[in-house]
Amino acid sequence: MIAPAITLLTDFGTADGYVAEMKGVLTTLAPGVPLLDLTHDVPAQDVAFARLTVARYWRRFPAGTVHLVVVDPGVGTSREAIAVCSEGRFLVGPDNGVLSPALFALDARVVSLAIPAQASPTFHARDVFAPAAAQLALGLSLELIGETRTDAVRLRTPQPQRAHDGTLLGEILTIDRFGNAITNLAARDGVSLLVGSHQVRLVRTYGEAAPGELVALVGSSGFVEIAVRDGHAAARLRLTRGQQVVLSPVMR
Amino acid sequence: MIAPAITLLTDFGTADGYVAEMKGVLTTLAPGVPLLDLTHDVPAQDVAFARLTVARYWRRFPAGTVHLVVVDPGVGTSREAIAVCSEGRFLVGPDNGVLSPALFALDARVVSLAIPAQASPTFHARDVFAPAAAQLALGLSLELIGETRTDAVRLRTPQPQRAHDGTLLGEILTIDRFGNAITNLAARDGVSLLVGSHQVRLVRTYGEAAPGELVALVGSSGFVEIAVRDGHAAARLRLTRGQQVVLSPVMR
Amino acid sequence: MIAPAITLLTDFGTADGYVAEMKGVLTTLAPGVPLLDLTHDVPAQDVAFARLTVARYWRRFPAGTVHLVVVDPGVGTSREAIAVCSEGRFLVGPDNGVLSPALFALDARVVSLAIPAQASPTFHARDVFAPAAAQLALGLSLELIGETRTDAVRLRTPQPQRAHDGTLLGEILTIDRFGNAITNLAARDGVSLLVGSHQVRLVRTYGEAAPGELVALVGSSGFVEIAVRDGHAAARLRLTRGQQVVLSPVMR
Repeated sequence: MIAPAITLLTDFGTADGYVAEMKGVLTTLAPGVPLLDLTHDVPAQDVAFARLTVARYWRRFPAGTVHLVVVDPGVGTSREAIAVCSEGRFLVGPDNGVLSPALFALDARVVSLAIPAQASPTFHARDVFAPAAAQLALGLSLELIGETRTDAVRLRTPQPQRAHDGTLLGEILTIDRFGNAITNLAARDGVSLLVGSHQVRLVRTYGEAAPGELVALVGSSGFVEIAVRDGHAAARLRLTRGQQVVLSPVMR
Repeated sequence: MIAPAITLLTDFGTADGYVAEMKGVLTTLAPGVPLLDLTHDVPAQDVAFARLTVARYWRRFPAGTVHLVVVDPGVGTSREAIAVCSEGRFLVGPDNGVLSPALFALDARVVSLAIPAQASPTFHARDVFAPAAAQLALGLSLELIGETRTDAVRLRTPQPQRAHDGTLLGEILTIDRFGNAITNLAARDGVSLLVGSHQVRLVRTYGEAAPGELVALVGSSGFVEIAVRDGHAAARLRLTRGQQVVLSPVMR
Repeated sequence: MIAPAITLLTDFGTADGYVAEMKGVLTTLAPGVPLLDLTHDVPAQDVAFARLTVARYWRRFPAGTVHLVVVDPGVGTSREAIAVCSEGRFLVGPDNGVLSPALFALDARVVSLAIPAQASPTFHARDVFAPAAAQLALGLSLELIGETRTDAVRLRTPQPQRAHDGTLLGEILTIDRFGNAITNLAARDGVSLLVGSHQVRLVRTYGEAAPGELVALVGSSGFVEIAVRDGHAAARLRLTRGQQVVLSPVMR
C-alpha cells in the first residue's frame, strides 16, 4: 500500500530552500507518492497556531495519508521526534504538541523516532521527519520505524468557562487572513456576543448582514467567529489572540 | 476520462488551513488526480484582480483540466455557485464574474450548483466547489452536476476609448510583483505613451532600454505595460490601478 | 524515461498568474510529470539569493529530475537561455549565474536554447524555459534541445580570507526567515565568532544555548550561522547580507 499523499506543513517559508531540500528527500525516498503543500506560512515557531491548522485538516484526507508537520522551535534540544497513527492517518513531527489534534483519538499510537548521528542538529525536517514520512508512505508500519511511547505532549484548545450568571466566557483562538476572529465557543442559537464594549448579534449567514456590518456567526469549523461582511473585523475592533469574548443568551 | 489536473486559485492564503481542507476533500473524492496550486495570494476578496489572473491561464491547460477558482466575498448570500465548460476546460466557482474569461467563448455552458443543507455558509470552497470539481475531474458531465443556466455574471475588461484627436485613452488594469503596470491597450507599433506627465517611449524588448530607463513595451499577454528596466515602475511613478494612460502615434 | 519531477523556482510570486501560465505549458507538453513548487518567493530579481537556494536543493533530487530556475532580470536582453545536465540532474534557466551550483560539477554539460521568434520578449519562462524543461522531462537528450557551449556564467560564493593573525575573515551570505545569518565560514571546532562588536560562542546544538541566547553553530548546509535560540538574530544585531564576520580560535 502506497500513501495517497504526503502533505507538508511548516513555518519555513519557501524562499530559503529548506522546503526544497525536504522535497528532494521525499522524492528520492518515496518515489511516486504525491507531495501536497498545505502551508509553509505558519508564523515562525508558532506551535499554537499550527496546532489549530492541523486540527482543521488532518482528518479530511483519506486513510493512509502521511501528514508531515514541522513547527519546531525546540530542534536540537531534548524534545523528541515522533510519528503517530490515528484513525488511519499518519502524522510525523516534533513532540511539542503540534500533533495534538490527532493524539486525542482513541486509537492513536505514537512512536519516538531515533535521531541519527549524522542528522543536522538544526534541520530534523530534512534528516529525521522527511525520511520517516517516506517510510510510512511506502507502507512500513508505525512500530517498525520507532519505539512505542505513551507520553507524547498533548495540548488542548482552551475551553470556555460558564460564569455564575449563565454566560460563557471564551476567547479568540486565532485571526484569519480575512480578519475574522475565531473563538473557542461552539455554536448556539439565539445568542449575542460581547467583545470588549461591542455587543455583536449572531447571524446564520453573511446574507443576513448588511455590507460593513459587524456580526458573529458559526464558522466552518463549528466555532463562533466575529466578522465584518465585506470588511476586516480584527482591524476594526483591534482584536487579538487570547482576548476574552462573552456569549450570553439574547433574552437576558 | 480522468482530468489531467485540478488547479486551485483562491484568496485564502495557506496558513489558516482552509486550502488544506479543500485539498483533503479533493484527495478523498478525486483520488489520483494531480492538484496544482496556481495561487492562494490573490488580494483578499479582489474579484477583479482574480479575473485578470484567470484570463492568463485558463486556456493554457489541456482539455479536461478543472480550474477551481474561489474569490468569494458573497459566500453565504444569494449569489449562485456555478460550473462552466468552455473550450474543453472546466471551471468551478462563485457566480460573481471571476470566471468571466471562460464565459465569453462561443461554446461556454454554465450550470448552477445546488448548495447542500449541511454546507457551511462561510465555506462553499470546501463544501460545494471542491466536491463539484472532483466530480468533473472524474468525468461526470457538466449537466449531471447542476442545472443549466444562461445568465451568469460576465465582467469585461474596460475597453480603451478613441479620442477625437486619434489618441487612445486606456487605463492601468493591474500592477505586477515587479512593479510593471499592465494596461488595457493592445500592441501598436511606433507609438509613445503618456502616463501622468511622463512621456514614455515604446520599445520591443528590455534590451533596447538602458538600465533604470522607463519604457513601455508589449507584455506577455499582448497588452502594453509600463516598466523600468531593473527597476520598479509603479513605485517610481506612483502608479495605481485604474489610472488613465494615453497612447499616441509618435509622429504627432 | 520520464522525469521523476519538474521542480519550479522563480521570483514571480504567484498572484499575477505567471507561474500559472508556466504550469499550463508544462501540463500540456509534459503530461503525467509531477510539478513541484520549490519557491516563487525569491526576492525580485535577486540572482545571488536564488543561486544559494539552488545550491541547497539541486542535488537532493533523484537523477532525471528537471529543475526549472527563473530569476531573470536580463530577459529580453542579449543574455542566453541555457539548459544543463550535471550529475544526472537537468537544470533550465537564464545564463546569469543562477545555475552556477550545478556548473562546477566535473561532468556538467551546457547547451544554449534557441529563442523562437514568437516568444514573448518579457516571458521566456513560459515560452522558452518551460518548453525546454518539458522536453528534457520526456527524455530528450540535452544535445537535442540546444547548441553545446562551454562559457556559461559561473558565480562563486565568496571565499573567506585568512588574515596574518590566523583569523578567518568571512561574510554573511544570507539571512533566513528565522533571522539566522548564514555565513561562508565552514565548520570548525573550538572557535568563537566576532560579529560587529559581539563575541559569539560556537555551540553544537540549540540545546546548548539558553533561551534568548546569541550563539553560532554549524547549520544544515555545513556553514556557520549566527542565531538566537527562540529569537531573531538578524533583527537583534541588525545583521545585513555582505557584513563581515571574523572567526578566531578560542584560545588566542
